[in-house]
Formats: sequence, structure tokens, C-alpha cells
Amino acid sequence: MELSHIEHIGIAVKDLKQTIKYYEDVLGLKCYAIEEVKDQRVKTAFFMLGQTKIELLESTDKEGPIGKFIEKKGEGIHHLAFAVNGINSALVELKEKGIQLVDQNPRKGAEGLDIAFLHPKSTHGVLTELCENKNK
Amino acid sequence: MELSHIEHIGIAVKDLKQTIKYYEDVLGLKCYAIEEVKDQRVKTAFFMLGQTKIELLESTDKEGPIGKFIEKKGEGIHHLAFAVNGINSALVELKEKGIQLVDQNPRKGAEGLDIAFLHPKSTHGVLTELCENKNK
Repeated sequence: MELSHIEHIGIAVKDLKQTIKYYEDVLGLKCYAIEEVKDQRVKTAFFMLGQTKIELLESTDKEGPIGKFIEKKGEGIHHLAFAVNGINSALVELKEKGIQLVDQNPRKGAEGLDIAFLHPKSTHGVLTELCENKNK
Repeated sequence: MELSHIEHIGIAVKDLKQTIKYYEDVLGLKCYAIEEVKDQRVKTAFFMLGQTKIELLESTDKEGPIGKFIEKKGEGIHHLAFAVNGINSALVELKEKGIQLVDQNPRKGAEGLDIAFLHPKSTHGVLTELCENKNK
């Protein structure tokens, strides 16, 4: 498998607007996009820092994945996303190696990327996402 | 404050050796250093991925910060570290803005970097580290 860089870090937050203010006014970053991802029941805000995006995730539904995460664990880092060259063959390889896949096949994520999640049970506790930008 | 990139992502793990095996054999990364940081009571393993390091942290003491984290939350992402230009002035600025600092002044971290932690209460749930490599 060929990972090129960390595509983004997903952070679960309670209040997108307030947290954007912290990332902009305190850390000096610039929010360049806000996007709703309906099937994940989240509103997201993106910041670029070097090669890597910070993706803030506010739940639009208490029963959605981020809503449940925040209820259980509070705000904090939710997942780590690697940019991969060849997401389809990467998933085949992972499956062969016994890694538990949340997504058996890539699906469309924020910003039009092809994405797939790996289960944290198989990845030493880190909810891991693979991303490929096939429009590059 | 001027952040340049994500310096590293710190991940708490139970068994450094086993987890290195996962990052190498499954994700295809290469562990380039193992280091014990005695005052943090951890053994660390480093991988480079693009601009960013992945820092695996195994506790050498149940009562240390990583030992306690794992007992409470299990394995997973522990902190997010930003590379900053001018760590001393950054800490002054953060203090003025009401951010709660864990370290009032920079101290030496792994790989000889000057580091300081910000309290997750002030950073929307993310244990945040600032790092500066003054030997560059």
C-alpha cells in the first residue's frame, strides 16, 4: 500500500461556529470551506495546514456517528485520514491481511474524494480513513 | 501565531512492538527511530509520512500520562502537535488570549524539539502540542 501523506484529521466538535473562531483567531488558520455531508449527518469546516487538512465535524443529528461519539467521549479527535494511491487495491490488500473494513468499497466523502474507513479494532484504536482524489 | 504544518500525531498504544508491526506490515510505513522519553514515562516510535510524523507512545509506567490515558480511554489518538515558528512568543500570545497552558514555558521533548502543551479544556477537546525545532 502506498500512502503519500496525511490527508486530514477529523475532529468532533459541539459547535462549529465557536470552534472555527478558535482555529482562526487563536491558531491563525483560515477556514476555506464549510460543507454538509448529509449521509454522515455532519456539517464540516476545513482548514489547510501544510499538506494536511483539519476537518471539524459538527453533528446534525444526535443519533449520527459524530453525535454518538460526542455523547460518549466528548469533543476531540475522531479519525485520521491517509491519502493513498490506489484505494481499491489498498482495500483488497487490507482485507487479505485481516483488517476489518467499515466500507468494503470506496464511497464518496467530503470534497468529492473516494474514501473508506477501517475499523479501529483492527488499527490499534485509531478510526482510520483512506482517501483518494481521483480528480487530480 | 505562525503554524507551518502538523509536526506529529501522538497515538497511545498498549504494545509498541505489535503496533510498529501494523504500521510497517499493513500501512507500509517505516519506523525510523525508537526513543525513551523518561520524564514523560513513555517509549516512542516514529514514522514519517509526508511532512508529518506519527509518534506511537507506549507507557513505561501505569501512573504516567499515557498509562492513565489508556486505562481511561483505551488505545487511540492522544494529541496533535503543530510546528510553530517562535514558540516563546506563541505561548505569550496564547496566554493573553486566555488559553490554558499545561507548560508555561517550552521544555525539551522527543527528538530535541522545544515543546509545550495546551490544555484540551481550552482547545475544544484536543490535547494540543506546539513544537519548534531550534536546531534547524
